[in-house]
Amino acid sequence: MVTAVNASNIPAPGADRGTAPSSGKAALDALLDLVGGDLVRVNQTIVDRMHSPVALIPQMAGHLVAAGGKRLRPLLMLGAAKLCAYEGDRHVRLAASIEFMHTATLLHDDVVDESNKRRGRDTANALWGNKPSVLVGDFLFSRSFELMVEDGSLEVMAILSRASGVIAEGEIHQLLTANDISTTEQAYLEVVGAKTAALFAASTRVGAVVADRPEAEKDALEAYGRNLGVAFQIADDFLDYSAREADLGKAIGDDFRDGKLTLPVIHAIARADETERAFWVRCLEEQAFSDEDGEADLAQAMDLLLKHGSLAATVRRAHEYAEAARRALDVFPDGDAKDVLVGIVDFSVERAY
Amino acid sequence: MVTAVNASNIPAPGADRGTAPSSGKAALDALLDLVGGDLVRVNQTIVDRMHSPVALIPQMAGHLVAAGGKRLRPLLMLGAAKLCAYEGDRHVRLAASIEFMHTATLLHDDVVDESNKRRGRDTANALWGNKPSVLVGDFLFSRSFELMVEDGSLEVMAILSRASGVIAEGEIHQLLTANDISTTEQAYLEVVGAKTAALFAASTRVGAVVADRPEAEKDALEAYGRNLGVAFQIADDFLDYSAREADLGKAIGDDFRDGKLTLPVIHAIARADETERAFWVRCLEEQAFSDEDGEADLAQAMDLLLKHGSLAATVRRAHEYAEAARRALDVFPDGDAKDVLVGIVDFSVERAY
Repeated sequence: MVTAVNASNIPAPGADRGTAPSSGKAALDALLDLVGGDLVRVNQTIVDRMHSPVALIPQMAGHLVAAGGKRLRPLLMLGAAKLCAYEGDRHVRLAASIEFMHTATLLHDDVVDESNKRRGRDTANALWGNKPSVLVGDFLFSRSFELMVEDGSLEVMAILSRASGVIAEGEIHQLLTANDISTTEQAYLEVVGAKTAALFAASTRVGAVVADRPEAEKDALEAYGRNLGVAFQIADDFLDYSAREADLGKAIGDDFRDGKLTLPVIHAIARADETERAFWVRCLEEQAFSDEDGEADLAQAMDLLLKHGSLAATVRRAHEYAEAARRALDVFPDGDAKDVLVGIVDFSVERAY
Repeated sequence: MVTAVNASNIPAPGADRGTAPSSGKAALDALLDLVGGDLVRVNQTIVDRMHSPVALIPQMAGHLVAAGGKRLRPLLMLGAAKLCAYEGDRHVRLAASIEFMHTATLLHDDVVDESNKRRGRDTANALWGNKPSVLVGDFLFSRSFELMVEDGSLEVMAILSRASGVIAEGEIHQLLTANDISTTEQAYLEVVGAKTAALFAASTRVGAVVADRPEAEKDALEAYGRNLGVAFQIADDFLDYSAREADLGKAIGDDFRDGKLTLPVIHAIARADETERAFWVRCLEEQAFSDEDGEADLAQAMDLLLKHGSLAATVRRAHEYAEAARRALDVFPDGDAKDVLVGIVDFSVERAY
C-alpha cells in the first residue's frame, strides 16, 4: 500500500494536471521554469526532514507529500523571492517549512471533514485512521517550526506562527458556520481569508523578507498572496458545483452534501423565496435529502444557483480578488517574474471553468 | 456549561489536591512559595493570550486551563529559573508558552484516546466533539510558538520546537505499541521519554537558558527534568492499577481496558507462563473481556501483578529515575531552591502510594 518516498518519485507538480486547461498548465509551468532547480531542492529537504525513527511518520507524510499536490504555496514563496531578485539559499528551507505547515493542516482538515478522498486518492485518515492523522499532523507542525528556527529569522517566524494561528481560527470559524444558512458573505470571506489566504499571504511576504526588501514591497507581496488566496478558494468552492470529477479528484456536490455554506449557496440563499429557503434549510441544515445520495436535491440546488445567477456572481467575486492581486504587484518593475506571478492569478480563477 | 475564565477563577494549583498525601501537597506548595507571584502572572498571560474573535476558542481553552491542572511544567520552568537565580521577566511568557503546548497535546491526546474524563471532569472532546478539539489544539500550538517568537531566543525556540516534535513521535510510537503484548520495557521507556519526559526536560532546561547559565548547568537541569518526567509517568502508570478513583479523577484500570502496554503489565507479561500469556493476549490484544466492564479480568490482572511483584518492580524503577533526577542537581549549590526541586522529585513518585 505504501511505497518509500524519495525526491525522485515525488511527481513533478504538473504531473496530475492532464485535464487542466492549457492556460493553467502553462502558468504553473512558467512558475516552475522561473524557480528553476529550487523546487527540486525543496522536495529533497521535505523528504530528508520527514524522517523519524517511528516508521509510520515518513510513511504517512510521504503519502501526502507524494499525493500530487501542486506545491503552490512553496512555489509562490520561491516566485516572490525571485521577483525580489533574491540570490541566497534560505528560501529552500523556508519553502519546505511552509509545505510542512500546509500538509499538517491538510491532515487535520481531512480528520475534521471526515474526508475519504483528496485529489482522487485515499486520504491518510481513510488509510490509517484518525488517530495517527492527528499526531502526524502535530509532528509536521513541529518540523515546520524546527525548519524556521534553523533559518533563524524572527521576522519570518512571527509571520508564519501568526499565520498558523489564523488558519486554525479560520477552520474553527468554518466549523461553526457549517449547517447554518444564516451565514453571511462577510463571514464566508473571513473564513476564506483565514483558512486559505493567510498562508498564501505569509508565503509571498516571506519571499520579500528573505530578500530583505523594503516594507512597501513586503506589504505588496503579502497583498498579492492574500487576494490570490481568496480568489483561489472562491474558485475552489465554485468548482464543487461545476467541475467534472476527473478534473478535481473529488465528486461534485461534496460541500452541498456536507452542508457547507460556500459563496454560491450563500448568494442563492440571500435571494431565496420562502419555498427555496425551506429547501436550503432541509438540505444544508437538516441534511435530510429526498434520495439516499442527495442527487435529486443537488440537481435542484444547481437549478436554484442558475436561476439566481449565483455561479456567475461567484466567478465575478473571484475575479475582483484576482484583479486586486494583480494590482498589488504594480510596485514591482515589469519583467518575467512579474508576468509569471500574474499568470498564476489568471490560473487560480480560470481553472474554475 | 461553560463559564468565562479569567485569572481569578483559575483554581490555585493546590485546590484539587485535597486527597493527596501531605508530603506531595507540601512539595507543590513549597514550589509555589519559591516562584512567588510568577505563577499568577503566568496564569494572566495564559488568559490574555487564549483570546480569539472565534468565541469557541477561549471557551474550550478555558475549560482545559481551568480544569485544575497542577501547572507542573511551567512551575518547573519557573523553579529552574529560580535555582539559576534568574532576575528578569522572560520566564513568565515562556512558562505560558510551555503550558499552551502542553494543553494542545492534552486536547489531541483526549481525541486519540477517546477519553471522556480528565482529572474527574468531562474532556473537551466529550463536551464539544473531536473536530473542535483537533483545531483548538492547533490554535494553542500556534499561540505557544507565537509566545516563543515574542521572547525572541532562538536557543529557547530550538529546545521547545524539538520537544514538540519528539512528543508527537512518542504519541505515535505509543499508538503503535497499544494492544501489542510483545512491547518491551525499552520500547515503553522510549515512549515515556518522548511523550512525557521531553517537555519536562525542555521546561527545566529553558529555566537555565533564560538565566544564561553555562552549558553544564543547562545540561544538569535538562537531566533533572528528563528523569523526573520518566519517574512521574511511571508513577502515573502505576496509579492506573492502584489509585482510588477519588484521588486520581479517573477509574482504575483504564489503561488495562484500553490495552495499553505500561510498565506493570510489561513486567508481568515477561514472567507469564502459557496460561497467563493467553490471558494477556485475550485482554490486551483482543480486548475480549469475560464480563461487560472487564472487572473480573481486571481483578485477575491485579492478582498476576501481585504474583510477579510487578507493582513493586514498577515503583522501584520510578525510584531509580527519581534518584537520577536528584543527582542531576548536584552541580548546584545547596539552598532553598534546590530543596524545593528535590521535594518535587519525592512528590512525583510518592503520590503513587
